[in-house]
Amino acid sequence: MIVVGELINMTRKAPREAWARKDGGAIAAMAREQAEAGADYIDVNSGVPGEEVACMEWLVRIVQETVSLPLCIDTTLPEALEKALSLVNSPPLINSVSAERERWSRFLPLFKGVSCRVVGLLVGDQGLPKSVADRLATAEFLIGKLREAGFQEEDIFLDPCVMPVSTDAQAGAVFLQSLHALRDRWPRTHRIAGLSNVSFGLPARAVLNRFFLALAMGAGMDAAILNPTDPQILQTLLAAANLLGQDPYCRKYIQGFRKGLFA
Amino acid sequence: MIVVGELINMTRKAPREAWARKDGGAIAAMAREQAEAGADYIDVNSGVPGEEVACMEWLVRIVQETVSLPLCIDTTLPEALEKALSLVNSPPLINSVSAERERWSRFLPLFKGVSCRVVGLLVGDQGLPKSVADRLATAEFLIGKLREAGFQEEDIFLDPCVMPVSTDAQAGAVFLQSLHALRDRWPRTHRIAGLSNVSFGLPARAVLNRFFLALAMGAGMDAAILNPTDPQILQTLLAAANLLGQDPYCRKYIQGFRKGLFA
Repeated sequence: MIVVGELINMTRKAPREAWARKDGGAIAAMAREQAEAGADYIDVNSGVPGEEVACMEWLVRIVQETVSLPLCIDTTLPEALEKALSLVNSPPLINSVSAERERWSRFLPLFKGVSCRVVGLLVGDQGLPKSVADRLATAEFLIGKLREAGFQEEDIFLDPCVMPVSTDAQAGAVFLQSLHALRDRWPRTHRIAGLSNVSFGLPARAVLNRFFLALAMGAGMDAAILNPTDPQILQTLLAAANLLGQDPYCRKYIQGFRKGLFA
Repeated sequence: MIVVGELINMTRKAPREAWARKDGGAIAAMAREQAEAGADYIDVNSGVPGEEVACMEWLVRIVQETVSLPLCIDTTLPEALEKALSLVNSPPLINSVSAERERWSRFLPLFKGVSCRVVGLLVGDQGLPKSVADRLATAEFLIGKLREAGFQEEDIFLDPCVMPVSTDAQAGAVFLQSLHALRDRWPRTHRIAGLSNVSFGLPARAVLNRFFLALAMGAGMDAAILNPTDPQILQTLLAAANLLGQDPYCRKYIQGFRKGLFA
């Protein structure tokens, strides 16, 4: 599993407050904690209206001064992406492009000559397709565009976008079937997602989110945007990887147990 | 999900002690608790060496006097199966036959003219096949034998048999892939298993067992032999069914939450 640490995101209260008082130490601590918990990428989301470029620069500088992990650049603003690309000192993951014309047509030119990987949301001009077949068609279009822009399949992370089961009981099933179908059809790509949307509107969300993480791993997701400092999430990652044959000799599972993660 | 309550099993201490002191009340209580927890079948395993037929008769009578659920007849002894079939008052599930010649050749004649469903273990004369392809070949042989004996595909419950990940890291993955392949190839059959073997030899088994239950449901298992009175197992069943699109309007999940199952 490739883990993208999600904590440094301006839609969350703590980082937003840190930005408001220019408290770089708070951001550095979030980067450090996630790195120590085993993150592979540190997500930086700079979505502060009107200040996104400045915020992105601030976040990228602090995180790179603090940890040696690559960044996941999380923005919908081309100018913020350009700023980030001018600053990164190792190939980042770009979060995200999509099959919406407005998004890919503005983002893809920015990748010319740049070394990076990219998250592709399976959302098109008509929104998120309802069926597995339509999500595959959207993936085919988007993979074509990304290949034209110079990306190898290995550098493409497809996100079939999960919706809440509270508004559509089949939302989780279609998402999981999409993961499975994407792995079958483009085995060299990665499958990534942020999963917590699935439980929106329901009680005991943490329980649903943990089981959905395990189910998504079972269906072929090999990267996730999550909070790696949450012991319950770590427990799920270790247990599911062990059960799915991704943990030779149960080594990581037993290490996690010895660290007290299953107490 | 079709739930087979596993508590009345002579390999467990409490029922074995109940048999030793002929305490029918203890067995009745186990039947009642499992029925109230939502079991669809009550498993009766009479595996007491030398007393299996008498024990089977005792168990079948007590459970049928206590609850109106059908039985799951759990024995490897043809005489105990015959005794049970002579006593049941609704079509039972037979647990189990296999592709071992000694097993199917002695069991199948007993089903002539009897209304029942059957668990088929994907174990052959050479043991449990290692690969998914070999388990499918075993399933094909066994389904053929069961069809000849008069079973419809709808009445066949295939069990791909899970082995511990502690001795073979791929054991869980092969089991899950087998479930998926069985559902694809014989969608009218059911897929059943007892899952706890997967965690044998590892610490924090209950955590692994819960995630494996969810993963197996995600891979196409639609029946399970388990303890339905365990709140953690019930929580898993409700959460996974909800996430997999098997819970319209999230009704059962929300009912379970209101009963305090997620506290």
